[in-house]
Order: sequence, then C-alpha cells, then structure tokens
Amino acid sequence: MRTLTVELGARSYPIHIGSALLGDVELYRPHLRGPQVMIVTNETVAPLYLGPVKQALGSHQVREVILPDGEVYKTLEVWSRIFDALLAERFARDCTLIALGGGVIGDMTGFAAACYQRGVDFIQVPTTLLAQVDSSVGGKTGLNHPAGKNMIGAFHQPRAVIADTDTLNTLPERELSSGLAEVLKYGFIRDAAFLDWLESHLSKLRSRDPEALAYAIWRSCEIKSQLVAEDERESGSRALLNLGHTFGHAIETGVGYGEWLHGEAVGAGICLAAALSARLGWLTESEVERTHRLIAGAGLPTRRPPQLAPERMLELMAVDKKVLAGHLRLVLLKRLGEAVVTSDFDHDALAHVLA
Amino acid sequence: MRTLTVELGARSYPIHIGSALLGDVELYRPHLRGPQVMIVTNETVAPLYLGPVKQALGSHQVREVILPDGEVYKTLEVWSRIFDALLAERFARDCTLIALGGGVIGDMTGFAAACYQRGVDFIQVPTTLLAQVDSSVGGKTGLNHPAGKNMIGAFHQPRAVIADTDTLNTLPERELSSGLAEVLKYGFIRDAAFLDWLESHLSKLRSRDPEALAYAIWRSCEIKSQLVAEDERESGSRALLNLGHTFGHAIETGVGYGEWLHGEAVGAGICLAAALSARLGWLTESEVERTHRLIAGAGLPTRRPPQLAPERMLELMAVDKKVLAGHLRLVLLKRLGEAVVTSDFDHDALAHVLA
Repeated sequence: MRTLTVELGARSYPIHIGSALLGDVELYRPHLRGPQVMIVTNETVAPLYLGPVKQALGSHQVREVILPDGEVYKTLEVWSRIFDALLAERFARDCTLIALGGGVIGDMTGFAAACYQRGVDFIQVPTTLLAQVDSSVGGKTGLNHPAGKNMIGAFHQPRAVIADTDTLNTLPERELSSGLAEVLKYGFIRDAAFLDWLESHLSKLRSRDPEALAYAIWRSCEIKSQLVAEDERESGSRALLNLGHTFGHAIETGVGYGEWLHGEAVGAGICLAAALSARLGWLTESEVERTHRLIAGAGLPTRRPPQLAPERMLELMAVDKKVLAGHLRLVLLKRLGEAVVTSDFDHDALAHVLA
Repeated sequence: MRTLTVELGARSYPIHIGSALLGDVELYRPHLRGPQVMIVTNETVAPLYLGPVKQALGSHQVREVILPDGEVYKTLEVWSRIFDALLAERFARDCTLIALGGGVIGDMTGFAAACYQRGVDFIQVPTTLLAQVDSSVGGKTGLNHPAGKNMIGAFHQPRAVIADTDTLNTLPERELSSGLAEVLKYGFIRDAAFLDWLESHLSKLRSRDPEALAYAIWRSCEIKSQLVAEDERESGSRALLNLGHTFGHAIETGVGYGEWLHGEAVGAGICLAAALSARLGWLTESEVERTHRLIAGAGLPTRRPPQLAPERMLELMAVDKKVLAGHLRLVLLKRLGEAVVTSDFDHDALAHVLA
C-alpha cells in the first residue's frame, strides 16, 4: 500500500492506494468521530462492494443509501434522499458519511456531508479509476443543474481516501479509458516524463496490469495533491486541472449527461485544447498528432461529437463556470507537459478549432 | 448610522444600522466584485423595498428572484429557483447575491451564495427585527427538512449587512415581538444590564421608537458578533445563542412550520429553559417570574402550545441538531445574564418542566 498525504494544515488527509484495502477496518477507524456511519453508494456498486465495507465497519452503527447509477442522477432531487436517510436514522453531527462508488457518488456524498447540519465528516472510497485520480482529491463536491455541470456545490475535504485498485477489475472498459483521460491530463499539464511513461505503458494500463495502475494512480494523485495544496481555493495553479474540461463540459451538456462519459469528453477536450494551442504557435503539428495518438491510444475520442454544432459548443462554453465575468479563459498547452490558463486567443481561432 | 465590524480576519464584514440605508449605493458599492447582482426577496417585501434597492444599484446588471413568503417555503424545491434564475442569466463567479427580506430569505440566499459555483458573495439587507439581530449575523445559512429545521446548510459569511430601521415600520406586530425574543435572549445569556434596559424600554420598543430600536439592534448585534468572533465554528460560546432554541425548534416542528413564529417559539423556549434552570437550583422563583414578565411584556407566549404533548416535545428535541451523539445538551441559565451549555440535568426534570 502506498499512502500520500494531501497537505492542507488542519484538514490534511491521507490517500491510501493499493490492493485489498476496502475491507480493512484500520484504514477507516482513525477517521470515525462518532458511532454512526452512512454509506452512500449506487445500484451497480452495492452488490459488488457494499458487503465488505459493511463487514469491516461491523462494530459501528452502519446504514446505507443506494442511489441510482449515473451522471443523470446527480441532481438536487436524488441528492435530497441522502438527507432523508440521515434524518430518518437521526444521525448526529459527529456521524461520518462514506462515499462508495465513482465520481458521481463522491460528489453527491461530499456535498451532502458539507451541508448536513452545516458540515459533517466523510471518507471517500472511490471505485473507478476516474474517481481515484480525480474526484476524490481536492475537496470539490457538487451537483449538476440542467443548465450546467457542477453548478451547485461546495469545497469540503474528506477525512481520508481509500483507493482500492482491486475495484478496477470490475470496471467496464469505457470507464477505464475515461479514467485514463484524467491520468494523461496530469502528464500534459505538469510532467512530460510521466507522459512518456504513460505512452509506453498505455497497453499495460488498458489490460489492467496492477503495478502499472498503482503507479499511474499514485503519480496522478501526487500531482493533483501538489496543485491542490498550492492553491486550495482555485485562484491559480489549480485551474490548470481544467485542461480539456471547458470543452468537455460543453460536450457533456450538449449531447446530454451520460451519453459521453466525463473522461471521453475530457479526452476530446484535450485534443481541442492542443489544436488551439497549435494555432497560437505554442505546439507543433507533430505535438498535436502525438496528443491525438495518446488520447486515441487510451481508447478515447479525439474530436467533438459530430452532432454538436460549433455554435452550440461556443454557447455552452460561455456558461461554464470557468468564465470569469463574461470573459472566456481556457487551459492551453505551452508544450506537452506545461499548461497555462489564458484568455489570450481570439474568437475566430476558437471557432476554427471547433469547426 | 452606526457601523459595527464583525471581526473574522479576511472575512470581516460591516453591519450598518440606521435610517434610510436601503437606497444608499455607497453602502453596497465597496462589496460588489463584478457587475452582476441578483436580489432575492419575497412577495411581501418586493412591493415595499425592491424598487429602492434596484434604483440604488442602477449602474449594475440587476436581476431579481421573488419567492413566496414564509418559513414553509424554506425548502430545497423553492431554494432551487435561485439557481434557475442565476443560470438563466448566466451569472458568473464574481456575481453578488443580495438577500432582501427576513430570516428565511437571508438563510436561503446565503446558502445559495455558499453553493452557487461553490461559493459567491452575498450582502444581507434584513427587513425584519429578527433578521437584523439574528439571522444576518454569524454566517449560518440553510434550509428546513420535513424532519427538522435548518438541517441542510452551510457557514457562509456575508460581505456586508445593511440593517435599515425604517423597514420595521411596515412590520406586523407579531413579527416585531418575534424579533424582541431574540433581543431579550442576548440580555439573558450575556448582559444583565442590557436586560434591565430592555425591561424599562419594552413599551417604547413595541411602539417602534426609532432611538430605542436602533440601540437594541446595535447592542444585540454587538453581543452576537462578539460571540461569533470568539467562536466562529460553534464549538463553544456560540452555542449559548441557542438559549430557548432547542425547545423552540421542537415547538415549531411540532405545530408545523409557520404556525408559531420563530421568536414566539424561542420566547416560550426561554421560559422553559428558565424553569429547568430553577429546578437545578440556579434561578429563584422570582427570577423565573421576571423571565415570564419580560417574555410576556414583549408580546410573546410563555408556555408550550397546549396541543403539543410533552412526550412529542421530547421526541422532537432528540432530533434537534444540538444533540451531540445522542446526548441532549441544553442552554440553561446560571442567573439572568449568564447562560451555560449543559447536559447536567436528568430526564425527569426535563419531563416535569414540559408537563
């Protein structure tokens, strides 16, 4: 087991990465303030992993909420069921919520923990590669609104993250690829050497080689936790984590939540960001081609959905929350391994790239 | 105009108290980061005060959301309309929400500001005495759940509070009395001299003497802001502010939200707390009688609703969020002017007081 600490002063927390962690009570125990534990999970994950987690926590008062599975359910209405369960069981302020599932479960559970009685503890047990390398680190929680993704939410740090690599064996291939989009992202924005390593290990990662996966998760979490520790409130370097995401969110909203997976949209978004970076003279054509090869090699799309017109993409990007006072800022690439936040591109260049 | 600063480091904010403040653009301007302003108000307040506030902010992009009036509407469903409006107008992260109304509007607007894009600025313009002395100070925001009041919420500090005493001229008498419950509370928990002053000025306050009201608001805010500054996260002295509230919340829930006003329930709750304090030997019978005289003199009930059985009260108090890990803690009075948080009473004493 590898353990990484996200340094946030009094709210620092450990990320444990490895095999057979899910059922290890010792990883939970130091982080449970009171006797009451509410596991929030979904209909897909519950039959696979709810049992072992409940068994590990057998000496506590453990209850569960099982939500429907999918990004389309990341709504206020579904979210409110967590409060119904907490209040039906009279959970007190010293209770702990456990998010057992992917990014949607993590976001909804974390946001419920942020708001229940104005804030209780939670532990993340991410069961997808995407959640292990992204959603479970950084304290972002939230819900979607019909008019935009993650528009309602809070910053709320978990007490611990338990990333059990065994859970990836039950992950569908499309979801594994979706997670690889975020893994590749860390290489693109911060670490050219990691990008090289990923390039030579893509087939191992896709065949779920445990050693390769553990290293990729660990390095991804390390890069993200460094960025988050530098800048917890997203005023500076943390914004780099949005590489591909402004494009990606527009794609997800445009085709309807759940049609494209988050990582698929991010993969295509990274390719669009690379193309725009090339138009600014920052990337060469061969670097753009390498970007496409890496994204395609992870099993991800490299272009926007053909049914989504460029005009509609532009419109959707304008409501993305990265728009600061009406001015569109994007994360682009100075080179492969170094991202910057910029609004230093003209509308025509953006429109051209989308077309 | 009197101005009080709530000292919270980087999140310190001013409370302006006085006449004719509502339409003074200079009080808003220093706190508006971007051009977009969303005024959240209700159907009762909008016809009275929305016009002047909009006029003062004429140079900004001002929009409004008008919600139905009343505690029964402090729900997730009604709350979500604020997001609908913000997103329909494409409000960015540097927008400002203005809460124009009583405590319900303040709580819902503040919580929406806490959650919109994971946190935007808001300004409180409280138009009831209760909101001016209570809800607008301390950063507590939230919503009710059918199973309990304020169970869903966040801590989120306003950028400024503008308490215009002129708005109290349109306040119904029952609501004025409800506000006086909280004013009296500050005397009971922290300041015997203020309690003496209130005793001799109750009739002036009820006839809306502007001088008396301004002093009462100012001193109430000062006591509350001291307690909040001491203890922003409610681990210690801030809990004293809950005098009468655990009883009061049980009353409000038991009779149905909106039947009793918040301050009416708190008034009766203070009398119940005094009675329990007397059973512990802390208050004399004549102090209990004085408490009843003060509460009744403010136009407030001194007893629980007769239709609410003691057993049901106890049950409802057990889900109140002040219950820590199943153990009921109450704010009681060591003397008139000094409150303590304690669980040092037996169940029989509590049951006797409720009967």
